Amino acid sequence: MFVILVYDVNQKRVAKVLKRCRQYLTWVQNSVLEGEISDVNLKKLKMELQKIINKEEDSVIFYTMRTTNYSSRELIGLQKNEEGNII
Amino acid sequence: MFVILVYDVNQKRVAKVLKRCRQYLTWVQNSVLEGEISDVNLKKLKMELQKIINKEEDSVIFYTMRTTNYSSRELIGLQKNEEGNII
Repeated sequence: MFVILVYDVNQKRVAKVLKRCRQYLTWVQNSVLEGEISDVNLKKLKMELQKIINKEEDSVIFYTMRTTNYSSRELIGLQKNEEGNII
Repeated sequence: MFVILVYDVNQKRVAKVLKRCRQYLTWVQNSVLEGEISDVNLKKLKMELQKIINKEEDSVIFYTMRTTNYSSRELIGLQKNEEGNII
């Protein structure tokens, strides 16, 4: 499946969260990653993030798409990662 | 259609970008908005943002879904907006 992950976490935990997310997904821009990921890995990532974040303060949202047939991605301005459009 | 908008813009322009996005979409968390939007309004929003942002520095990504039948949204941690799950 395809996942868009957006996080809003305290500065203290950003590096840890980002490092973990990057193991599974591609960094797109500040606080946003995306990519194809298996069910198993998505579960793993969620569990790992749950251990890192402070649930009173931090927020991570997963937008999960079973198919990208009905979605598209458009960028305005500067492309901040090096990979180009993935969808 | 359903849109997830993520922006990464220079601090100088954040307030302007956010204000414009909020006219069409719902704020979800830092740098992320989402919501149902018509084709016409999406075009308007893109045009308006193109006038505000600096294309050498700022980045705005629109993930557009023609249907949300194949997508879901999961939050870990704190819910930062007041509206709850929208998809």
